[in-house]
Amino acid sequence: MKCPASSDIINAYERIKGLVHQTPVLTSQSINDICDTELYFKCENLQKVGAFKYRGATNAVLSLSEAAKMNGVATHSSGNHAAALALAAKINGIAAHIVMPENAPEIKKKAVAGYGAQITFCQATLEAREKTLEEVVLKTGATMVHPYNQWEVICGQGTASLELMQRHKDLDIVMTPVGGGGLLSGTATYIKEQFPDVKIIAGEPANADDAYRSFKSGIFQPVVNPDTIADGLRTSLGSLTFEIIRDKVDDIITVGEASIAEAMRMIWERMKIIVEPSSAVPLAVVLENKPLFKNKKTGIVLTGGNVDLAKLPW
Amino acid sequence: MKCPASSDIINAYERIKGLVHQTPVLTSQSINDICDTELYFKCENLQKVGAFKYRGATNAVLSLSEAAKMNGVATHSSGNHAAALALAAKINGIAAHIVMPENAPEIKKKAVAGYGAQITFCQATLEAREKTLEEVVLKTGATMVHPYNQWEVICGQGTASLELMQRHKDLDIVMTPVGGGGLLSGTATYIKEQFPDVKIIAGEPANADDAYRSFKSGIFQPVVNPDTIADGLRTSLGSLTFEIIRDKVDDIITVGEASIAEAMRMIWERMKIIVEPSSAVPLAVVLENKPLFKNKKTGIVLTGGNVDLAKLPW
Repeated sequence: MKCPASSDIINAYERIKGLVHQTPVLTSQSINDICDTELYFKCENLQKVGAFKYRGATNAVLSLSEAAKMNGVATHSSGNHAAALALAAKINGIAAHIVMPENAPEIKKKAVAGYGAQITFCQATLEAREKTLEEVVLKTGATMVHPYNQWEVICGQGTASLELMQRHKDLDIVMTPVGGGGLLSGTATYIKEQFPDVKIIAGEPANADDAYRSFKSGIFQPVVNPDTIADGLRTSLGSLTFEIIRDKVDDIITVGEASIAEAMRMIWERMKIIVEPSSAVPLAVVLENKPLFKNKKTGIVLTGGNVDLAKLPW
Repeated sequence: MKCPASSDIINAYERIKGLVHQTPVLTSQSINDICDTELYFKCENLQKVGAFKYRGATNAVLSLSEAAKMNGVATHSSGNHAAALALAAKINGIAAHIVMPENAPEIKKKAVAGYGAQITFCQATLEAREKTLEEVVLKTGATMVHPYNQWEVICGQGTASLELMQRHKDLDIVMTPVGGGGLLSGTATYIKEQFPDVKIIAGEPANADDAYRSFKSGIFQPVVNPDTIADGLRTSLGSLTFEIIRDKVDDIITVGEASIAEAMRMIWERMKIIVEPSSAVPLAVVLENKPLFKNKKTGIVLTGGNVDLAKLPW
């Protein structure tokens, strides 16, 4: 399978930069003191729709041919990708068809509907979602945009780290969480070519450790029934993201649920920003492995801030 | 009483800029859509110690003579000013003496102690606080730094709007909340001289409306027993801040408690940042007075993010 190069991510950046927020990079002296290191947080929780997913969705929409644009885009998702694709389609004046499970949270249904997407509800199984999406695509001629296992999406997600390195060229390590692997593979693709001395380390919940097991064994091992508060990381790698991650990532480190919740609360309290549990996984890795990060400068992509304020894990 | 000029705020900026965060200015398409206007949020909740107060405290500390530095600084406060002064003193290697009421929240006592300040506890009356502070100053020779009614503090607070205007020169309106008036008077001092066409509008809780009544009547009228969730705005104006605000502010508009809570939640949910109730008061004003802001560009200083995550108003 042909993998993207860093030049593809630079092209994606040129394509989308007028449409995405150039999110800030924040630092916290108190978190640095606690971790005995220097951390630089790229705040994609402050991205449009509250997640880095808007980058990949926008790049996918802008990469369509004029003919394809006429039929719109389609996906199945109950999470940030659905909202991201819906808004990216709306802003670019094309249709979005989103397949959502009937039991998706009302707030997510409302958000996607609010962006003007056509929603088709289905049963809450992966089989039903894929079958319904297939029917929608057949009927509408829309182009499927996968949440992570797709070239344009990976290139879009990689632009977060491009912006991070524009601001902080002297990082030693860049970290992201890993779920489906779109962000991690885009990050590794850009950085390993452009800044070969920078180490790429991903954090993953031990309770959803398919990327860890696949990376360590070299054999793709999907996860079964993951049970983690990091709801954005319950998916398994795809064929393309696995290949890139296996070849370009330096390490994947797993962490427990208590560390994730502690790191999440630390970001809320010390940095005054709202992150979802998935965003906190790399900081949890730092907290559990301080010697690894001592005397280094580490960039961390905070992936999203979509969390139910009435259901906090403390 | 001699009031500061915009050149004093520019000097303060040159003095403190290496020690404070250049906080980001964020926008939210969805809040703009709800309010039918264009808002630019200067995020001082992301400032060190989580509040703009760090600017004024740092300017006060850096403005001390070498002789005065040897005896340190002192204040009475149970809020953001205490933490700000303690950290500013610590970073500049001088002593900080903080008088706190015995019933101050444990988390605030810990924060101030964590910055290495000398804490003297007293009874929870203004009289006891002022008397204890007087004793501390007599004993230590420390310089008193008032939370708002002091030249250097006002000049430091004004630098937030200086940075805002650096980024967005084309604003029509700049808004802050008003409590003691340090931020508002610094903002008005800088902007009314440098950008005379920009309107300065303050937001105040109707339940703590001393600045509104004083401004409208031209006679200083302190508040008695204010009862508002915007805990940072329960103080009354000082003699110096009242004079500046009376002369340079265009309007003060009051809002109810429900609007403040609604605006606070909107900022959390739509912008993914943590703000304390006081920060949300200007947005509450916009929500209650949409026609006033239509077809205008409005900058809003978000003042702080220090809030007990276990006690949210929803």
